[in-house]
Amino acid sequence: MSDGQSIEEAVIAHALRVAGMPSARVPIGAGDDMALVNVGNAKVLIAVDQVVEGVHFRMGTPLDLVARKAVARNVSDIAAMGALPAACVASAVLPLDMSADDARALVDAVAHWARLFDCPLVGGDTAVHRTPDAPLTLSVTVLASIRADGIVVRRNGACAGDTLLIGGPVGGSFGEDGLGRHLQIEPRVTQAQQLIDALGGKVHAMIDISDGLGRDAARLAHASGIRTGRALQARLCATDVPLHGGVTLRQGLCDGEDHELLAAVEAGAPIPAGWTAIGSVRTPHAGDARGCVVDALGGEVDASEFGWTHG
Amino acid sequence: MSDGQSIEEAVIAHALRVAGMPSARVPIGAGDDMALVNVGNAKVLIAVDQVVEGVHFRMGTPLDLVARKAVARNVSDIAAMGALPAACVASAVLPLDMSADDARALVDAVAHWARLFDCPLVGGDTAVHRTPDAPLTLSVTVLASIRADGIVVRRNGACAGDTLLIGGPVGGSFGEDGLGRHLQIEPRVTQAQQLIDALGGKVHAMIDISDGLGRDAARLAHASGIRTGRALQARLCATDVPLHGGVTLRQGLCDGEDHELLAAVEAGAPIPAGWTAIGSVRTPHAGDARGCVVDALGGEVDASEFGWTHG
Repeated sequence: MSDGQSIEEAVIAHALRVAGMPSARVPIGAGDDMALVNVGNAKVLIAVDQVVEGVHFRMGTPLDLVARKAVARNVSDIAAMGALPAACVASAVLPLDMSADDARALVDAVAHWARLFDCPLVGGDTAVHRTPDAPLTLSVTVLASIRADGIVVRRNGACAGDTLLIGGPVGGSFGEDGLGRHLQIEPRVTQAQQLIDALGGKVHAMIDISDGLGRDAARLAHASGIRTGRALQARLCATDVPLHGGVTLRQGLCDGEDHELLAAVEAGAPIPAGWTAIGSVRTPHAGDARGCVVDALGGEVDASEFGWTHG
Repeated sequence: MSDGQSIEEAVIAHALRVAGMPSARVPIGAGDDMALVNVGNAKVLIAVDQVVEGVHFRMGTPLDLVARKAVARNVSDIAAMGALPAACVASAVLPLDMSADDARALVDAVAHWARLFDCPLVGGDTAVHRTPDAPLTLSVTVLASIRADGIVVRRNGACAGDTLLIGGPVGGSFGEDGLGRHLQIEPRVTQAQQLIDALGGKVHAMIDISDGLGRDAARLAHASGIRTGRALQARLCATDVPLHGGVTLRQGLCDGEDHELLAAVEAGAPIPAGWTAIGSVRTPHAGDARGCVVDALGGEVDASEFGWTHG
């Protein structure tokens, strides 16, 4: 599994080099939660995310929850850009022994959740594996529109001094049986819109927590440091991180698949209801390469790798 | 394999019911080569198509050709709508034993062909199978913009009396070794644009030949018949169908994956260079449910099922 993950990381890093450069047609390339593309005279956001049986969900997981996860994690990316869902398409590779009834139920479930998240299913493609035991794969691509005021929130817009806000509690998303909240993601589109409505351009950066709060906070700081040309660090205050019931701080920092939003807002900006200040962005001390540290009762711990990668 | 194909057909039919209904936001839903979505104030086309090892290409096919096929069949859908490529995203599930070098080479190849077809790669997602022998899967979603004059060519716009034009020769795309032209699709974006430049609104309908000329001509006629409320039939003249060298008429009608364009244009419209008239659209005799017939030296043969479905 560690081999697999290292290949995923290698591919992602390579894809950023290959597809991450902005251009006149692609103002935001690969590397943020979504890419921004000029299509004709319009700006459109697009992102793809897939779920694979045995990787993102256990065999035997109800198809309705598989479909929900596939759609919701994409719509969560829309939320993180401060954008609005427009539509989605899906492609599936079905196990050889899946019944036609189950296949239709999967289509229904994707369409249901897409509609519920205001991101209607408008197209798709289906194939059936030729080999036994090959896993169900479901890939969803979402389209989104930008706000009427033109604001798009990137993950790399944070500045030294910014306050870090989180939109909800984290940790324990997998549950003890693997059937936890990671299968019941609630994309925070409305919450993100309300934050931007309230603070406008003071919302400097945003990311959805998919791979663990520590890791994703480090990503936000790292990307913002590249933009500003000077390293930045996310400093979280251990006692301020809101946790789900029965969850340790380590789980809250590491578990991932929370899909709550982490935002960097201008220092001193009012904190809207529903958001919790959990730290700040700062210029690290010389030689300190840590992207995210947690101030845990006086000692600072490197949390940059607190999380996981699932490709 | 026939079970698998029937499930694919069941899923596709079901998806059309679920995702095919037009709405204010989605003027063209699932069922055409691409869906048309209102994103903010703009009209955007989107489609997804995937290739699966063992289904769409043989194990051992060079990764460069796998990537080309995945991108090109999508860009061919853009051509068929009379639209212009904007950008693409890709998701891949890699075999457990794929090397990091091969994985990077696959990314490079997708990016290369996407750039070459003027449809740059702007995002992606990667996972690695957890089970041995699970196949390489590559799903590509393309975004396209509509022409400045607003023309979008659907597959359902044909009228009785229309002339059927084909943009190039067909048949034998798989070759004897499975490494034929189906891996070297040339999307006909420019050819489609030239046809619309020349004939404007007289280009009533278009489709790219993916599943066999007989089957796809029947689809065009069937969809157009539903639109007009009166059955339509594509009538092809056997001796006029341009074939690749060494290919029989049956292969030309059945083989599929040609990805040449089939267009229905107004009767009497001039035929631009590069296009060949191969028949016409007509109202069938009462009780004749055949969507495509081939006039083969005096006898009419039902060619509606000449082709294959690969999901």
